[in-house]
Amino acid sequence: MTDSSGLSRRGLLGLVGTGVGAGVLGLGLGVGADRAVTAHAGGSSGASASYPFFGRHQSGIVTAAQDRLHFAAFDVADGVSRNELIELLQDWSYAASRLTAGLDVSPTGATGGSLAAPPDDTGEARGLPAAGLTVTIGVGPTLFTTADGTDRFGLASRRPPALIELPHFSGDQLIEAASGGDLCIQACSDDPQVAVHAIRNLSRIAFGRASLRWSQLGFGRTSSTTRGQTTLRNLFGFKDGTANVKAEDTAAVDEGVWAAAGDGAGWMAGGSYLVARKIRMTIETWDHASLGEQQTVIGRDKAEGAPLSGGTEFTEPDFTVAATDGGGPAIAPDSHVALAHPRNNDGATLLRRGYNFVDGNDELGRLNAGLFFLCFNRDARRQFVPIQQALARSDRMSEYVKHVGSAIFAIPPGASEGGWVGETLFA
Amino acid sequence: MTDSSGLSRRGLLGLVGTGVGAGVLGLGLGVGADRAVTAHAGGSSGASASYPFFGRHQSGIVTAAQDRLHFAAFDVADGVSRNELIELLQDWSYAASRLTAGLDVSPTGATGGSLAAPPDDTGEARGLPAAGLTVTIGVGPTLFTTADGTDRFGLASRRPPALIELPHFSGDQLIEAASGGDLCIQACSDDPQVAVHAIRNLSRIAFGRASLRWSQLGFGRTSSTTRGQTTLRNLFGFKDGTANVKAEDTAAVDEGVWAAAGDGAGWMAGGSYLVARKIRMTIETWDHASLGEQQTVIGRDKAEGAPLSGGTEFTEPDFTVAATDGGGPAIAPDSHVALAHPRNNDGATLLRRGYNFVDGNDELGRLNAGLFFLCFNRDARRQFVPIQQALARSDRMSEYVKHVGSAIFAIPPGASEGGWVGETLFA
Repeated sequence: MTDSSGLSRRGLLGLVGTGVGAGVLGLGLGVGADRAVTAHAGGSSGASASYPFFGRHQSGIVTAAQDRLHFAAFDVADGVSRNELIELLQDWSYAASRLTAGLDVSPTGATGGSLAAPPDDTGEARGLPAAGLTVTIGVGPTLFTTADGTDRFGLASRRPPALIELPHFSGDQLIEAASGGDLCIQACSDDPQVAVHAIRNLSRIAFGRASLRWSQLGFGRTSSTTRGQTTLRNLFGFKDGTANVKAEDTAAVDEGVWAAAGDGAGWMAGGSYLVARKIRMTIETWDHASLGEQQTVIGRDKAEGAPLSGGTEFTEPDFTVAATDGGGPAIAPDSHVALAHPRNNDGATLLRRGYNFVDGNDELGRLNAGLFFLCFNRDARRQFVPIQQALARSDRMSEYVKHVGSAIFAIPPGASEGGWVGETLFA
Repeated sequence: MTDSSGLSRRGLLGLVGTGVGAGVLGLGLGVGADRAVTAHAGGSSGASASYPFFGRHQSGIVTAAQDRLHFAAFDVADGVSRNELIELLQDWSYAASRLTAGLDVSPTGATGGSLAAPPDDTGEARGLPAAGLTVTIGVGPTLFTTADGTDRFGLASRRPPALIELPHFSGDQLIEAASGGDLCIQACSDDPQVAVHAIRNLSRIAFGRASLRWSQLGFGRTSSTTRGQTTLRNLFGFKDGTANVKAEDTAAVDEGVWAAAGDGAGWMAGGSYLVARKIRMTIETWDHASLGEQQTVIGRDKAEGAPLSGGTEFTEPDFTVAATDGGGPAIAPDSHVALAHPRNNDGATLLRRGYNFVDGNDELGRLNAGLFFLCFNRDARRQFVPIQQALARSDRMSEYVKHVGSAIFAIPPGASEGGWVGETLFA
């Protein structure tokens, strides 16, 4: 397969065609060493943050949520071997380690190669800083076992019990082409051009080995993942993610985000499970709903995001407080806040990391907009699934949303310096 | 028609249903007076710039190009009267004057109204600053005369000679649904959520009177419009807009951007003409082209953006310099730089204001990406059209691009304080 990939054919990443063992030697070479990152003086996104690619956990999970997203799901091409899949993950890891440092995908990069050959890097991020880029790589259920039971890469026995196929949820209107995937890459950055550059070049590196199945751009983070971040608003106009698990809540993160060695797949220790849901909002219907109805649906007030039981944004909702009009509880039992609250879900929490999206408009002139929901959890069977089942069953919000895309991925632990994401899976 | 519009029915903008004369009284009320703009501490786009909506020219033309775009083209609904069209333009102007100041569309806004009524504003920009938002309003050829000659709003005699129907260009593969439009709004901001909020709320205000025909999000400005801005890169990976007309070049701006009273439509004096072209790049083909071929196509080097005749980015191209290999001129006559250069177009220039776009991927896994080209010119018959004809005829770049959307709009002069965009058209 590598013959059909421009990058691989020329072995530019120092990995492909040299076999697995030799390939690993190429990792990390040249990171930070071959050219300085020039400052981005032109745009507004002067974010100079940069996050390491290597580490115990992959970046892009508890990392302070960046403002922009390009997410891509890939299918591995027919005929690709186990070793070629390994090489792809090595190539991606190597390139990602450079991209997250604000570098081109290879030392030769966009402009340093031969005039007679295509450049290694497409070049549109030259002159831009890392802008907080994180590249988070995952593997989907279909990599382990296909629907007809084929063990494509000899991985069937390695499938984590937590990497389930998501069940059908009431009201799901999933588009097959916008769901699933053998592999995924989540690229988050404070500059969309940097995130797009990462996905484009990683897709290019995959050429002939894996191809884009679906992809999604997002532009406004809807969840804070650290205490220092302001809560922003989703396209319903409400603050979103107030009660999110925060990176500083290390006990909650250890309990609810990171997979442990004893969870059923030792190779996933330090990893997590990502659930992606593309939720289209019927915003015209929402926009015609009264302020009172909107607040009842959410269970919070629109101005401040305080629970309708009183207080301020970060006050805990009190489901026992009665409404001032005497007509029942202040927070409706079928409000989003009530149904999603850990108290009503055996303590289950999610680390959410969603983004707003607008994909143009439909033929009726309605904005095709909504929430690209992303969450990380330790075991979707105990966390995402029961919470979503409760919501799908009775959430007052269901009238205003339509789930059109769905996927789950195992997010392996981070790679150690010189290693690659997925190494523990193939060990 | 206004019965079907939530906003208009309640007269929330103080304009609709009160007639033209009375309506104008509502304009500008409360701008900056009703609530403070709170700082946006959460995102990276801390841009605190704000541009006035009122002025001799509309903002968003020579304004320093912001980083993000949401562009929308609208069709006026059947049965809408001339007066209702005027009211729509008044409503838009009033709302835009508030939005560009970082405010909700009305004093009541997202949260200050009755619990029993839908909020005036959808709310997702609450807490965000103006972020350099500009709202630029235009009118298309079909507002003046339809294809069958109907004079829908009594405007046929007011149609500017320069507001032509664009001719077919060689290689055009236009999608009708992504082309044309009776009205347009260009919303530029350094925060995409602010630009999206503007288009969403202006679309909502138009409900029942005009509906979205097509819309486009863009994320990386490809042209500087002031000398202080760094030249950024398009998705070919090349710097774009190096030779763009800059706001500081007042003679060039007066000559090539602003319509004058003697140009054939006195009401357009101080306005301009906007051409929008959605140009999909066949980036996989481009990415397989050699660095030498890419540079030959553009006529500049990829690293610095210098013309192939030598020098640095801002050195004037010299079309007489021979290539070092002796095989002809250093800058190919059919390169993009040569064909688009004013010297080869009777001195014609364009103020470009384009954006990169990625609209997901197609079913073959190719990114649906390219350049959303926007340019302002005084008369497309002497500027955009001949330049584009030269490019379409022989540009080496044609192999790598596909024009899929096209539109032209007259951009009226700016409104004076308390006035509205389009006032001179209907005077």
